[in-house]
Amino acid sequence: MTTTVLNDHEKMKTFEELESAVRSYSRGWPAVFERAKGYKIWDTEGNEYIDFFAGAGALNYGHNDETMQEKMIEYIRHDGIIHSLDMGTTTRGAFLESFRDVILTPRNLDYKVMFPGPTGTNSVESALKIARKVTGRDTVISFTNAFHGMTIGSLSVTGNSFKRHGAGVPLHHSVSMPFDDYMEGHDTIAYLERFLEDSGSGVALPAAIILETVQGEGGINAAGMDWLKKVANLCKRWDILLIVDDVQAGCGRTGTFFSFEPAEIEPDIVCLSKSIGGIGLPMAITLIKPEYDQWGPGEHNGTFRGNNLAFLAAQEALTHWETDEFSEEIQEKGKFLRDTINRLIKTYPGLDAQARGRGLMQGIAMGKPELADEICAEAFQRGLIVETSGPKDEVVKFLPPLNIDKEGLEKGLNILEDSIKTVLGQ
Amino acid sequence: MTTTVLNDHEKMKTFEELESAVRSYSRGWPAVFERAKGYKIWDTEGNEYIDFFAGAGALNYGHNDETMQEKMIEYIRHDGIIHSLDMGTTTRGAFLESFRDVILTPRNLDYKVMFPGPTGTNSVESALKIARKVTGRDTVISFTNAFHGMTIGSLSVTGNSFKRHGAGVPLHHSVSMPFDDYMEGHDTIAYLERFLEDSGSGVALPAAIILETVQGEGGINAAGMDWLKKVANLCKRWDILLIVDDVQAGCGRTGTFFSFEPAEIEPDIVCLSKSIGGIGLPMAITLIKPEYDQWGPGEHNGTFRGNNLAFLAAQEALTHWETDEFSEEIQEKGKFLRDTINRLIKTYPGLDAQARGRGLMQGIAMGKPELADEICAEAFQRGLIVETSGPKDEVVKFLPPLNIDKEGLEKGLNILEDSIKTVLGQ
Amino acid sequence: MTTTVLNDHEKMKTFEELESAVRSYSRGWPAVFERAKGYKIWDTEGNEYIDFFAGAGALNYGHNDETMQEKMIEYIRHDGIIHSLDMGTTTRGAFLESFRDVILTPRNLDYKVMFPGPTGTNSVESALKIARKVTGRDTVISFTNAFHGMTIGSLSVTGNSFKRHGAGVPLHHSVSMPFDDYMEGHDTIAYLERFLEDSGSGVALPAAIILETVQGEGGINAAGMDWLKKVANLCKRWDILLIVDDVQAGCGRTGTFFSFEPAEIEPDIVCLSKSIGGIGLPMAITLIKPEYDQWGPGEHNGTFRGNNLAFLAAQEALTHWETDEFSEEIQEKGKFLRDTINRLIKTYPGLDAQARGRGLMQGIAMGKPELADEICAEAFQRGLIVETSGPKDEVVKFLPPLNIDKEGLEKGLNILEDSIKTVLGQ
Amino acid sequence: MTTTVLNDHEKMKTFEELESAVRSYSRGWPAVFERAKGYKIWDTEGNEYIDFFAGAGALNYGHNDETMQEKMIEYIRHDGIIHSLDMGTTTRGAFLESFRDVILTPRNLDYKVMFPGPTGTNSVESALKIARKVTGRDTVISFTNAFHGMTIGSLSVTGNSFKRHGAGVPLHHSVSMPFDDYMEGHDTIAYLERFLEDSGSGVALPAAIILETVQGEGGINAAGMDWLKKVANLCKRWDILLIVDDVQAGCGRTGTFFSFEPAEIEPDIVCLSKSIGGIGLPMAITLIKPEYDQWGPGEHNGTFRGNNLAFLAAQEALTHWETDEFSEEIQEKGKFLRDTINRLIKTYPGLDAQARGRGLMQGIAMGKPELADEICAEAFQRGLIVETSGPKDEVVKFLPPLNIDKEGLEKGLNILEDSIKTVLGQ
Repeated sequence: MTTTVLNDHEKMKTFEELESAVRSYSRGWPAVFERAKGYKIWDTEGNEYIDFFAGAGALNYGHNDETMQEKMIEYIRHDGIIHSLDMGTTTRGAFLESFRDVILTPRNLDYKVMFPGPTGTNSVESALKIARKVTGRDTVISFTNAFHGMTIGSLSVTGNSFKRHGAGVPLHHSVSMPFDDYMEGHDTIAYLERFLEDSGSGVALPAAIILETVQGEGGINAAGMDWLKKVANLCKRWDILLIVDDVQAGCGRTGTFFSFEPAEIEPDIVCLSKSIGGIGLPMAITLIKPEYDQWGPGEHNGTFRGNNLAFLAAQEALTHWETDEFSEEIQEKGKFLRDTINRLIKTYPGLDAQARGRGLMQGIAMGKPELADEICAEAFQRGLIVETSGPKDEVVKFLPPLNIDKEGLEKGLNILEDSIKTVLGQ
Repeated sequence: MTTTVLNDHEKMKTFEELESAVRSYSRGWPAVFERAKGYKIWDTEGNEYIDFFAGAGALNYGHNDETMQEKMIEYIRHDGIIHSLDMGTTTRGAFLESFRDVILTPRNLDYKVMFPGPTGTNSVESALKIARKVTGRDTVISFTNAFHGMTIGSLSVTGNSFKRHGAGVPLHHSVSMPFDDYMEGHDTIAYLERFLEDSGSGVALPAAIILETVQGEGGINAAGMDWLKKVANLCKRWDILLIVDDVQAGCGRTGTFFSFEPAEIEPDIVCLSKSIGGIGLPMAITLIKPEYDQWGPGEHNGTFRGNNLAFLAAQEALTHWETDEFSEEIQEKGKFLRDTINRLIKTYPGLDAQARGRGLMQGIAMGKPELADEICAEAFQRGLIVETSGPKDEVVKFLPPLNIDKEGLEKGLNILEDSIKTVLGQ
Repeated sequence: MTTTVLNDHEKMKTFEELESAVRSYSRGWPAVFERAKGYKIWDTEGNEYIDFFAGAGALNYGHNDETMQEKMIEYIRHDGIIHSLDMGTTTRGAFLESFRDVILTPRNLDYKVMFPGPTGTNSVESALKIARKVTGRDTVISFTNAFHGMTIGSLSVTGNSFKRHGAGVPLHHSVSMPFDDYMEGHDTIAYLERFLEDSGSGVALPAAIILETVQGEGGINAAGMDWLKKVANLCKRWDILLIVDDVQAGCGRTGTFFSFEPAEIEPDIVCLSKSIGGIGLPMAITLIKPEYDQWGPGEHNGTFRGNNLAFLAAQEALTHWETDEFSEEIQEKGKFLRDTINRLIKTYPGLDAQARGRGLMQGIAMGKPELADEICAEAFQRGLIVETSGPKDEVVKFLPPLNIDKEGLEKGLNILEDSIKTVLGQ
Repeated sequence: MTTTVLNDHEKMKTFEELESAVRSYSRGWPAVFERAKGYKIWDTEGNEYIDFFAGAGALNYGHNDETMQEKMIEYIRHDGIIHSLDMGTTTRGAFLESFRDVILTPRNLDYKVMFPGPTGTNSVESALKIARKVTGRDTVISFTNAFHGMTIGSLSVTGNSFKRHGAGVPLHHSVSMPFDDYMEGHDTIAYLERFLEDSGSGVALPAAIILETVQGEGGINAAGMDWLKKVANLCKRWDILLIVDDVQAGCGRTGTFFSFEPAEIEPDIVCLSKSIGGIGLPMAITLIKPEYDQWGPGEHNGTFRGNNLAFLAAQEALTHWETDEFSEEIQEKGKFLRDTINRLIKTYPGLDAQARGRGLMQGIAMGKPELADEICAEAFQRGLIVETSGPKDEVVKFLPPLNIDKEGLEKGLNILEDSIKTVLGQ
């Protein structure tokens, strides 16, 4: 890596002076980025970084996929429609058909596709609304350390106290229950069931249960397949809608297109965003079982729900799922990642760490939370972009592009190991 | 216009079968659109439409501006960063500097720029949060027929009962007060003031008052400049934050960059989205007076808050505001539109209509609400895209691209007049 | 009046040391009361006071009515049941029958009688619940300067900001609308109607409208009969339940048993408490039109809803209403009170005062709010108990026992006039 | 027992025709009661019943205590003040002093005494308000199967779904946690602690934790002393106010004046009502640690907070607590009751029952819920008044007057055993 000439303050002056104090990533990674390809990203000073962050899971297909780029350029050149709300367009139609043919039909799934505003939180808000409308109930059960978004509806089912407090108002109509493995020796399903079946529990029969199969922001907590099945059964038994927020864990992140596939469950509603747009353009969809698609026209809407460049890239992205190859590669890389994590934990007992997650959504939970931040800072200096998650930011979280090659993975993990050594003073 | 061969059902089959029942525009305008340029848009059958809708105000600069297109293609070709959350990027920096130099400094305005998720409702949610945090109060006063978005926070300050009911839960922490001219002979400012100063009124001192200077979805109700000034004074007197939601009326729609400029007020917070992205790509910013920019890092965030293609087009769009020319042209065209509206109202007394709005955000409110829908449907058949708004969908709403030429305006208005004649049976 | 030997602090030591800071009346009237009869009350030092406060309207029949006393003693002597929840008892049965025969039947009213917990706020809570259950709606409209009680449900429809703030949480599911004559030149009915009929107003169709015909705590604001009729019609037109909170204005206070009788309206629900128990014992009833009495058994309950000593005194109190005499006397005394008030206002222009109220529920609203407190304090020194009300405590409020004789009234009003003179320095 | 001549419908006609459908006890016990003494109660037909219900715990000192009766008669005869809001009166002062001398000082407790409206729910509402005010937080944690009252504030911390649903609106600002022994093998303290210490748990730091040491309506669930201590420690550690709702379990019901004495904890706030008034007259007090008594004057109030006849009886009732004798007798009778319950459970395995509770607040939880109702109905026919509790009404609940003699207890329990035999068909 080349030596930087400017100090951080000089480099980041524009952002420090003009942008709101709410900015966060530009604080931890004080650089001005300019160009990116695949799993690599470069700043204005020519420094190259390996990207184990991938747009917080929005760049599963890496930066600037060649085919997507070409299709976008071609589309722009021919004055393709950029913005269309929910008007019929050729790209919207083509995406819908590909999604049916490549994703839904082969998996025997039947969902209506809703296009909310192009953000994950918007998809979650639409899911909560339709669940409440369909059931006539108001409560939604979410789980400890859940993250579903920052608008008031989604925030009410999010666990993080700093983020909840940011609402500025008490958050209502939600109940937080313990996620899988929340407490050693406590069966969290039994607990949930007890609250549901006891008419004196103080918890009303909910409209829905919403969950992430792997909690991204909450610390890369992966629910067991058995736990997911039990939640699904419980939903069926009590006539509760099951919403899977697959915004971060979906689109192949854990090895299958939907993260819940290995659990063999069929959620009533699925939220997708982040990587659904293929190249990182804003897009979101909400999948709703046909019997629950009881919206009135325009009952939920949003100006940017017709982002056609995103539809175009999204359709191209779906071609990855025409065969099983992509899925198998992810799982293989996931295994390699897990092995390396286990080795690191063993080699560096000073971390007092635990392995977390599955597929290419894994992390190392540090015994001392502050180590995670220090390791990420050190890694950035060495050319690796990787961030923390968890309630105490105690988890180093790995979200490399799914199509990263073995060389890239190894190179990134080597930087990580060097960073660990430095932080531990070895 | 060429005759269509397919019937509506055949054309729209993909959308009817695969998309959620929530879709709305594709019902009223049963066509599959493919290409667009300036104020024109074409469907797959080659039909050409004049666009008086402009992406619900997201396409103030028309479809597919040449310079924006070229910059985007160039950017993509060079692997420019597409997605970056709130990391520092060259395009984000360049936009921030242009926004300061072209918009803020010449208007003597001082705001910190926040990038929330790239939708209007996300900007509004961020505005409500920071207002509540800064004041420590929970209530926000909004106005009758306000529209601020569809996520729970924004929806709570939105007036429309169909949309509110869609929340599926009671909406809290907001009080609805009468907008300017809500009731003939009633001074709505006096009314608002009485509620604020009477400690027995049942209305708590609010964190903020949020308003649109011209209510788009609510029926193109334009507040008077005097009324806006009074609201601003009242906010100062009572130490209430004034939030102007300029998502639809901003970015030049009413003739000045910010819609509130003629009122000579300085809101504490301004929400911008829709046309801020220039070419119709999702983008939103929240402007916050420096003294109120009390966010903690990441206290509000969102995956798509770094949509760099949008920043690129946004920066290009700002060049329109380097001189007064663009603004003057809008006002001139606005005057022409108003004159034509007045003539139509006079010529067709059967409409029992009223003129509404200002700049290039105008409408005709029909005495019989159903006429508005019929006229729009008729206009679509004749090649004009125009939609309704208002609590009873009683207003035909004109939002042509701001750079439409006189010929386009006239052509569109001629189609409108023909449609009126047909509907009235003349 | 005899000179007191102890200073206030010595007298009130027990209360100051042992009782919570929430105590209020014992601050303004620093005396320890011991005995009372009719409109007179004596403290431990033998000082006699004329009572123009009457237990905040709970002692309409004066202190210690002889017949009630005797019946109570007889009842206690014979081991009559004191406490019975809602079990059948002879006294409960007898009260129910008297209430039907003396109150309901002669007025052509048909209500089911509910016994909630024995407080006004409990009656209001029960009224709000049943209205929401029956309509399936959550919003309740109340009026500026309304007072309906201090528990969270009742507080949410109460206007006073100090009291609302005491909730410690935001209050929901209610909308405050302007009471009769709230703003000069503003037709508050037209305003309410506009909000109801405009589907974009931001105010949902409510379950109920709740009102006091004369607002006691809110400043003795008496609604006009025409205004009440219009509210009642509006409720019918929109299928909204009308709740009259007659806790303070009912039981003859304004000259008729129910305060709404002169308006010739028939509320769907009526709340009664305070003087319904005759001698000042805790009791409350909620009257519900049979078609809305859709409670499940025990769906609202309370331990002290069977206060049989109160039922006994209540039944005795109803005998006052067997003929029109009592009602006529109240109205006559009310006229005398009004004439005196008008004379005082005229004679003492320094008060800059307005007359308020009707029947024996009247007040003088002072131009300078602080005068009211000073006059009441002065009056107490001279042997008259009278308190203030209104959002700024600006109203001197007269609530003498309804059976006070002319001599008592005059004596009290003379003390008041002397107090006015002293305060004005005349 | 004598044979009744009237059938139930004839007897209860007045109540069926005139009273609201909300009435409950008069359905299960179709009789009109007239007279009562000690632990006996008689209906109009001369039938005698043993009272194991004691006004739902409001008649701990039995019906019509001679001394209380005499004091009341004397008081009434001398025109003692009946109703006084929170004015100073001799009876209020005397009660305050006795309460300090007999209850607080000997127990080394220091509380300010607040007089809210004279109902348990009113005391709870005042407790919740002051806890929220003092801490500036809004959430209150309550427990599964808690019952705290029927007004909206108290209902929000009550567990029963039928009662909660009766609110007609969603209930906010509360979180329900598992009570002691809620689930076998689950440590509910560890659970609560985990939610508090995890900043991602979705449960905010609460203003207060509210609990009953023995849940009356919830099924006579008695918390262990160790569990109570742990909750109290947890409150201290997290700076949370501990509210003990001793409305039903207090005033000696469990063997000590306060139910929490054996746990050696010192709640920050204590709610008392029911038996505090001695003879069954409405009364309630809220005890607040002096440092938290931060009320403004009148910030919570209520018309009937000065029920002087109740104060008089309350003071007399306190004399029971001047020595330890009364307490020891209760504990002895409690032991006898527990032994009998255990014997019954053993003798009648068909009940598949469990013993519940402590002191003279005990119950038998039936394996088949419907047995409880049948046994109570049978017992009523045989002259024993006893009711059910629990989420499925599965618990036969014993609340005899505390001063019942051994003969009465045995007689009642014999009737119960006969009823069990009949129901089980033995």
